[in-house]
Amino acid sequence: MRKALVLAALFLPSTVQAATDPLPSWNDTAPKKAIVAFVEKAKAIPAEQRIATFDNDGTLWAEQPLYFQFLFALDRVKAMAPSHPEWKDQEPFASLLKGDVKAALAQGEKAILTIVMTTHAGMTVDEFDKTVADWLATARHPVTKRPYTEMVYQPMLELLAYLRANGFKTFIVSGGGVEFMRVFAEKVYGVPPEQVIGSSGKLKFEMTAGKPVIVKLPEVDFIDDKEGKPVGIQKSIGRRPIAAFGNSDGDLQMLQWTGAGSGSRFCLFVHHTDAAREWAYDIKSPIGALEQGLVEAKAKGWTVVDMKSDWKKIFPFGSKDAAR
Amino acid sequence: MRKALVLAALFLPSTVQAATDPLPSWNDTAPKKAIVAFVEKAKAIPAEQRIATFDNDGTLWAEQPLYFQFLFALDRVKAMAPSHPEWKDQEPFASLLKGDVKAALAQGEKAILTIVMTTHAGMTVDEFDKTVADWLATARHPVTKRPYTEMVYQPMLELLAYLRANGFKTFIVSGGGVEFMRVFAEKVYGVPPEQVIGSSGKLKFEMTAGKPVIVKLPEVDFIDDKEGKPVGIQKSIGRRPIAAFGNSDGDLQMLQWTGAGSGSRFCLFVHHTDAAREWAYDIKSPIGALEQGLVEAKAKGWTVVDMKSDWKKIFPFGSKDAAR
Repeated sequence: MRKALVLAALFLPSTVQAATDPLPSWNDTAPKKAIVAFVEKAKAIPAEQRIATFDNDGTLWAEQPLYFQFLFALDRVKAMAPSHPEWKDQEPFASLLKGDVKAALAQGEKAILTIVMTTHAGMTVDEFDKTVADWLATARHPVTKRPYTEMVYQPMLELLAYLRANGFKTFIVSGGGVEFMRVFAEKVYGVPPEQVIGSSGKLKFEMTAGKPVIVKLPEVDFIDDKEGKPVGIQKSIGRRPIAAFGNSDGDLQMLQWTGAGSGSRFCLFVHHTDAAREWAYDIKSPIGALEQGLVEAKAKGWTVVDMKSDWKKIFPFGSKDAAR
Repeated sequence: MRKALVLAALFLPSTVQAATDPLPSWNDTAPKKAIVAFVEKAKAIPAEQRIATFDNDGTLWAEQPLYFQFLFALDRVKAMAPSHPEWKDQEPFASLLKGDVKAALAQGEKAILTIVMTTHAGMTVDEFDKTVADWLATARHPVTKRPYTEMVYQPMLELLAYLRANGFKTFIVSGGGVEFMRVFAEKVYGVPPEQVIGSSGKLKFEMTAGKPVIVKLPEVDFIDDKEGKPVGIQKSIGRRPIAAFGNSDGDLQMLQWTGAGSGSRFCLFVHHTDAAREWAYDIKSPIGALEQGLVEAKAKGWTVVDMKSDWKKIFPFGSKDAAR
């Protein structure tokens, strides 16, 4: 009987919780109302179909002044430089080591690929994991001086938890590297490695001194951006999401694919409009450009979050300016 | 209070269940004892690390006289033949349409690839799904005359359920086509599409009459066999399994990768030894050859199931011979 009483008591918090706001960092504006209305409707959808996909950079965490993974790569170049004296005279490394990121990037896509491959390949997946974990533990964001894992959007953390509490399986579908994101996604977002989809390099299984290892090769395998996002979803999930969340034109095809399914659907763009508390950018930004997405959101009635007016709080620690 | 009483009552069946054998189709021989001992030990492992991976062909369902997916492809060739009069004079189709599968396959890997690509590409993923579902609903196994989805191993169904009841997340990691398996894996094995990893062709996202579709291209993307299995696991799960189950040398690298992790590990080969109730084959079989795996299992103390002596029952309907 005691067991029964304990169980009965367990019912009380849930009653209390029902009265608690699951999205306290969201203002009571249209986006929050649309989310809550959709989640209520989704209760009628079989649980296994409640798949929600989230972009990462600019949707779950910030992406300014540069993609954080690229800042990781730049730090790695510096850390690896002592073993590579030849980089002094070799671009794009020479410019990077002089601190001139702009000059390095001005050399175009090939330079970026060189930087990424040099820092993300030629090691086992376990070694790479450790490198990323060490970096995340010590590196600080150049503007806020906060750990990168704190540069996440509090309203989106609440949204992830709210969806999961309502039977959704939450996935990350990002242009970022899958092995980079998996190092922190479970702890920071509650999204396990097997629910993280991203860009990736080729891998090779081999025996080293009688021990099996998986090595990261310096060759692109899959780019999980634009048309790649619905393809990545099909490859890894094999089921069309019923809800998708992004912030840039790179997410447009994911939202199109999600929105075109039958039954209740939910598509949302986060619009970066708050220069003081976060950053303000869209059409002309070299990072996270959002143009066609806004046009299509309007035409199709998708939800657009105006960060400035729809979010009460941006980061768990507050706002960018407060941190400085 | 009524709620509390109902909840208390819910506790009774679990007590009863604890006394019920979770693996009734397994004889009380060494493999069953090893499985139960491992699952007990695994209770000390954090739930998110309890990842178990299963090969499909020959491990979860039969693979004789030919891989079932290949039998599907042959049926598709016949169904598509009326729209392809040119196939009469074109190999490997000409031989297939004459019913001479051996002659068609004797033309080697290129012939097989042609048959697979012709029947698995050039359509949307939704169209392919429907074709497979229709085939599974009507096609019958050439020997037992049973639907293919009944050609599954009852002891393995019990094992999947037993592992899941103990907090394991079960994955399929198979050389078979990922989109083929996903059509039935959830219903037959309780494994949702996002936990099915397999071989795949390239995909293309495009707009057709304003509607987004994903098209299957006639180009191999990934072969999930041998060294490909641990690579597929890393790509899709991003975490090393603690238990792996296979039946052929194509599964060896998956078992090596699983077994080489730290802590409690479990690796098992199903050995096809029962010519009467199922099929008997290993070293010299053109399908599901098992040679190096047996050597390594012995050296490393992995579990080998002798189907004849370790399994009380083979298929849910009984045995191959009883079905004839």
